[in-house]
Amino acid sequence: MEFAYLGPRGTFTEAALRRLPAAKGAAAVPLPSIPEILDAVRRGEVDAGFVPIENSQEGTVTLTVDELVGGDPLVIAGEVVLPVTFVLASAKAPAAIATVASHPHAIAQVRGFLRRELPNAVVHQALSTAQAAQRVADGEFDACVCAPFTAEAAGLPVQAFDIGDSSGAETRFVHVVRPTAPPEPSGNDITSLVVSIDHDRVGALLAVLTELAIRGINLTRIESRPTGEGLGRYAFFLDCTGHLADPRMGEALTGLRRICADVRYLGSYPRDHSDRPVPPPAGLGDTDFADAAAWLDRLRGGGAA
Amino acid sequence: MEFAYLGPRGTFTEAALRRLPAAKGAAAVPLPSIPEILDAVRRGEVDAGFVPIENSQEGTVTLTVDELVGGDPLVIAGEVVLPVTFVLASAKAPAAIATVASHPHAIAQVRGFLRRELPNAVVHQALSTAQAAQRVADGEFDACVCAPFTAEAAGLPVQAFDIGDSSGAETRFVHVVRPTAPPEPSGNDITSLVVSIDHDRVGALLAVLTELAIRGINLTRIESRPTGEGLGRYAFFLDCTGHLADPRMGEALTGLRRICADVRYLGSYPRDHSDRPVPPPAGLGDTDFADAAAWLDRLRGGGAA
Amino acid sequence: MEFAYLGPRGTFTEAALRRLPAAKGAAAVPLPSIPEILDAVRRGEVDAGFVPIENSQEGTVTLTVDELVGGDPLVIAGEVVLPVTFVLASAKAPAAIATVASHPHAIAQVRGFLRRELPNAVVHQALSTAQAAQRVADGEFDACVCAPFTAEAAGLPVQAFDIGDSSGAETRFVHVVRPTAPPEPSGNDITSLVVSIDHDRVGALLAVLTELAIRGINLTRIESRPTGEGLGRYAFFLDCTGHLADPRMGEALTGLRRICADVRYLGSYPRDHSDRPVPPPAGLGDTDFADAAAWLDRLRGGGAA
Amino acid sequence: MEFAYLGPRGTFTEAALRRLPAAKGAAAVPLPSIPEILDAVRRGEVDAGFVPIENSQEGTVTLTVDELVGGDPLVIAGEVVLPVTFVLASAKAPAAIATVASHPHAIAQVRGFLRRELPNAVVHQALSTAQAAQRVADGEFDACVCAPFTAEAAGLPVQAFDIGDSSGAETRFVHVVRPTAPPEPSGNDITSLVVSIDHDRVGALLAVLTELAIRGINLTRIESRPTGEGLGRYAFFLDCTGHLADPRMGEALTGLRRICADVRYLGSYPRDHSDRPVPPPAGLGDTDFADAAAWLDRLRGGGAA
Repeated sequence: MEFAYLGPRGTFTEAALRRLPAAKGAAAVPLPSIPEILDAVRRGEVDAGFVPIENSQEGTVTLTVDELVGGDPLVIAGEVVLPVTFVLASAKAPAAIATVASHPHAIAQVRGFLRRELPNAVVHQALSTAQAAQRVADGEFDACVCAPFTAEAAGLPVQAFDIGDSSGAETRFVHVVRPTAPPEPSGNDITSLVVSIDHDRVGALLAVLTELAIRGINLTRIESRPTGEGLGRYAFFLDCTGHLADPRMGEALTGLRRICADVRYLGSYPRDHSDRPVPPPAGLGDTDFADAAAWLDRLRGGGAA
Repeated sequence: MEFAYLGPRGTFTEAALRRLPAAKGAAAVPLPSIPEILDAVRRGEVDAGFVPIENSQEGTVTLTVDELVGGDPLVIAGEVVLPVTFVLASAKAPAAIATVASHPHAIAQVRGFLRRELPNAVVHQALSTAQAAQRVADGEFDACVCAPFTAEAAGLPVQAFDIGDSSGAETRFVHVVRPTAPPEPSGNDITSLVVSIDHDRVGALLAVLTELAIRGINLTRIESRPTGEGLGRYAFFLDCTGHLADPRMGEALTGLRRICADVRYLGSYPRDHSDRPVPPPAGLGDTDFADAAAWLDRLRGGGAA
Repeated sequence: MEFAYLGPRGTFTEAALRRLPAAKGAAAVPLPSIPEILDAVRRGEVDAGFVPIENSQEGTVTLTVDELVGGDPLVIAGEVVLPVTFVLASAKAPAAIATVASHPHAIAQVRGFLRRELPNAVVHQALSTAQAAQRVADGEFDACVCAPFTAEAAGLPVQAFDIGDSSGAETRFVHVVRPTAPPEPSGNDITSLVVSIDHDRVGALLAVLTELAIRGINLTRIESRPTGEGLGRYAFFLDCTGHLADPRMGEALTGLRRICADVRYLGSYPRDHSDRPVPPPAGLGDTDFADAAAWLDRLRGGGAA
Repeated sequence: MEFAYLGPRGTFTEAALRRLPAAKGAAAVPLPSIPEILDAVRRGEVDAGFVPIENSQEGTVTLTVDELVGGDPLVIAGEVVLPVTFVLASAKAPAAIATVASHPHAIAQVRGFLRRELPNAVVHQALSTAQAAQRVADGEFDACVCAPFTAEAAGLPVQAFDIGDSSGAETRFVHVVRPTAPPEPSGNDITSLVVSIDHDRVGALLAVLTELAIRGINLTRIESRPTGEGLGRYAFFLDCTGHLADPRMGEALTGLRRICADVRYLGSYPRDHSDRPVPPPAGLGDTDFADAAAWLDRLRGGGAA
């Protein structure tokens, strides 16, 4: 079994892939770009892809979303959410550091630290934190800002841990496969969707959210995407709580199918999150759905209900 | 087969009953009050009841609604909507009419005519238009205001037709039976419901209407009713377009069942109305429901949809 | 000052009028029908009218509602809610009672009592409970079912109190005047409205309720009314919590005015109800409205808010 | 007057800045990162900042959004939307090109062209398209993929125009200033907001969209953002049609202020878009707002309305 992931080796993405249960024992193949990874999955050259989708420090996730929204269908089979922490990696003591390299996104997130602790160091931009670490290992720069895992992979000592200006940052990665039935419900699942809407954005979006809300389905993410199909058509990328097999989700999906110009199902998969699953609102639990279905059957049979 | 209906003989209700297809060939039994009729149905003393429910001129329909809302369950199996027209019935020419009798509701609806055409006549109240007609036939009064059918039944000539101040008035009657499966869908049906709600009336009522609206179900009538179960609980009497057997109605009913304190199904039956059935909104037709259900099946089977 | 009220003397309506603070010291003029009362107000022949509007035992309130919905504008300036209790009024002991008279509505509400306590008495219908009481006083019948006040007015002893089959029934009366500014807010007010809507009943009604709900306004009553203006136009009679002078109500009214085919304001007046006023939802209190308005002013002035 | 913009010189951002009317005659100062630009504005070191916010090819806009969402308040005073087109810039004819450099985002968008026209060229990643162009000018690589403007700035001939795999891509830039009153309404304006919500994401987001929809305000963009303030709090970045000075927008903003945990106003400014302004829904135009306000005044004055 082969997983293609966003290279190079030694970045956050590889660290995240190691935490994906489905990737245990699989061969991990670094590829240079998200479109190449997803196309390799589409063509069957690899069994699965593993790419960042949200809040990544190492590259845009717009590419991931747009690849899932367009092109031949793919589905998400799992996710890994990795806390983002930065270290200052260098063979030198801080006082001796004159140059620091990193990816611009990483530099942006440690600006306070650099200003405070290394005010005189010259900052250089690199294509990735892994490339920065390699260039430090090669002696081109004195230090780099990267993930602990990246420093370790490059054989660089850590001079300071957890140097990000804000804590709590996370990157979310997804395990992508060709269309297939989802894994069994885990009790705390996400279903990802893209819904397309013509015209009247607020009214149509209200209708979409209503289909979810009345079945007790929550959103953990919403993002509007340009569709590139001309003015007046909008797509929304949605992460919803629940699983394709749930009665509530099935009913909500058919509701969206009826009212949207297009609905693309992008998979149901276990949520990788310390959050407990959000309990459904009163009256919208699984037993309420079962009770209501049984009641309808009685009515249709002519009973007094 | 026996139908109990609101007597006495010779009123609008009897005229309406004659138009109900299901009553063809049945014995028609007049009873003096709506509660007695519905209790006779409940106890199995008659096969069906026939009572006014809306906009009646001959008695309150609150009684009908409240009997359907409370007590042992009954369902509506059909309706008849009768245009209400009034005549001036008398053996005398208008110039010779000194006294006019009728039920107060009927008098209220011909006030313009009486003021204009019989300004000097003394108006007397009667318990029903049929009673007024009888008292005219008996010589107690000169004329009465009643339905054409009532004048005919009492053997009174008509001096003026269609004397109501406004045209277009109608009375709606319902055919009530013990709980049973509804008649087959006719393509233009009503489903009657009572939904009970605790607290927050606007928010809860919004939720009820949302369950209907997103399935393309329309209302033809809504009325709030006191429940008599203390403050903060409300019941709504709803007439909805559609039939219990429709997928859209089934899904809406289960939705109401989940969110309401109580839902009482009061029957699905053909609409007696010259209105064409309201077509469902775009995307909410029967084929849209079938398409969406098939699509969900494909998704659950692992297809690309 | 003259109040016209629904006669005859000695009914529930007169009892209720005595409880209206605004009627203290006014001359009370009984008139035979609701339309006559309201027309007398419209023409300025009296200062105010006093009529039942909801759940009355003595006549239909549809007449009241329809008169307020159509015709020249009138507004409600106050309400009285009267508990409905029935007594058995007779100069004879129950064992000696062979005939009982009352209005059909009253008879319907004491059926259990009559069946249980006077199973052999013959029941006669009268035009009103006051008429029944008078006919008992005149010796025509042995007993009548009426309000305690009505028995007292007719000089009849009470043989049994509180004989209604269900308790908690109430009748609501309204004090109606020509259009004028409302009384000052009392802190627990009702605003009555009629809104007219074209076509699509559920969707349009959802829009109406949304305008109320987002401003924290509750409904205490909703009823759909035929408009008599042909198919596809509906009117809803609404009683809302709050007062015309409230910012929340003003904003809601302008919202309704924008989206409805027609809005008829029917007055703001103190609620006659033991219910405490419903507190507005979190964030929708008067101070929240004032805070938000001040914030908007700061924004428009160029502040950082 | 000084504008800080995202450097280096010669990128899309500088091309866009030249099209901003407010920047005419201003000094343009390139700075290396979005946070540095916005902090320079906050500290008053420059008068304004100019940064990409949406769909950029040259860097993430998450940084822009997150800087506007957090930190000391800033507002958007204008926008420029620039069509994104790519050229192949090189002093050599295509047949002689062995190496091509560009930013990874740009490379991703011309993959089809490269595969088809330069299948044997080796592709190198650069930190920006401007850096790639400079390295081509310096002789390090044979060709680069960049904007026409960037090629021109680097003095490189264009070998192929409009080589992007999809057409219609645009980048949106915003003109950011310290809080101040907005420019006058232009008739086609955007108002940008960040609203924060606690808990229940679908229900709360529904409430937010409802406040906009009932005032006829449309969305042109919605994006959920992690707030970094722990679980259960969400922020939404919204671009709405309309201007702070509009009555409809004022009422909607006060509505949001009442129901949201926090609302941050990010400015009203002319839309740079060939789209005609979306006309408000029937009944929600400016004259409808004015009519409704006048009607309310009449009611409060005691008129019949």
